[in-house]
Amino acid sequence: MLQRLNHVALAVPDLEAATATYRAMLGARVSAPQPLPDHGVTVVFVELENTKIELLEPLGENSPLAAFLAKNPKGGMHHLCYEVDDIAAARDRLVASGARVLGDGEPKIGAHGKPVLFLHPGDVHGTLTELEQV
Amino acid sequence: MLQRLNHVALAVPDLEAATATYRAMLGARVSAPQPLPDHGVTVVFVELENTKIELLEPLGENSPLAAFLAKNPKGGMHHLCYEVDDIAAARDRLVASGARVLGDGEPKIGAHGKPVLFLHPGDVHGTLTELEQV
Repeated sequence: MLQRLNHVALAVPDLEAATATYRAMLGARVSAPQPLPDHGVTVVFVELENTKIELLEPLGENSPLAAFLAKNPKGGMHHLCYEVDDIAAARDRLVASGARVLGDGEPKIGAHGKPVLFLHPGDVHGTLTELEQV
Repeated sequence: MLQRLNHVALAVPDLEAATATYRAMLGARVSAPQPLPDHGVTVVFVELENTKIELLEPLGENSPLAAFLAKNPKGGMHHLCYEVDDIAAARDRLVASGARVLGDGEPKIGAHGKPVLFLHPGDVHGTLTELEQV
C-alpha cells in the first residue's frame, strides 16, 4: 500500500528563520513561502533529490499547528506523508484494521490538491501519518 | 549540501507491534529486526520506493532512545537523516554557522557503517538532524 514517502512535515514557529537555516546552514534548495489559508499554514518546500521536507508555519486563527507549537515551542517533526494509489481502498483497509481516520473518516482534498487522509497517531505508534493519492 | 533523505527514524516501544502495523495495516515491505548493540537499538527497515523508515526500539541499558520514550511512551518521530558527500566539509560549514555537533564534535561511524554526525535539535528548529556521508 505505501509507495513513496511524499514528504516529512516539520512545524516551525518562524518560517523565515527556518528557511535561512535550511538554505544557508544546510545548503538545501528551498522554495519561496506559499500561504495556504484553507489549511491554516504557510509552507516552504525543502527540495531533496528523492523527496521533500515541508516547513510549516501557522497561518491565521485555528491553525492545525497551534497546539503542536504550544507543546513544542521551538518546533519539531509534525507528520509523515506516504503516497498510495487508491485512497478509498486504503481507507477501507485501515478501517477494517481498526485504525481511526481523523475528521469524518472520509478523504479530503489536501494542500497539494489531491485526496488525503490522516491516521490517528495513537494507531501508528505515536506518529501522525498522512496518506495521499497521487 | 543536503542530497537525499536517507531515512526517517521513528522510536517505538514495541518493535514487534510496530512491524505488524507497517506490514499488515499499512501494507509496506518491512525487514527482519536487526540488533545493533553498539548503538543501543534494534532496527526494522520499512522500505519505500524512494527512501526508508527506520523503526527503532531500545536495546540494552543506556539506549539513546530511553529518554525520548520516557517522554513519548507511545513512540514518535525521532530524527531525520540526510546524505552529504563530504561529512568533514559539512561539519566545518555547520560549525562556522554556529551549529552544535553532538558528542565531541567529530563524525562517528554510524549504524550503517558510514560516517555520521548529529546536530543539536535546538539549532535546527526542534528537529534532531543526522548527516551521513554515503
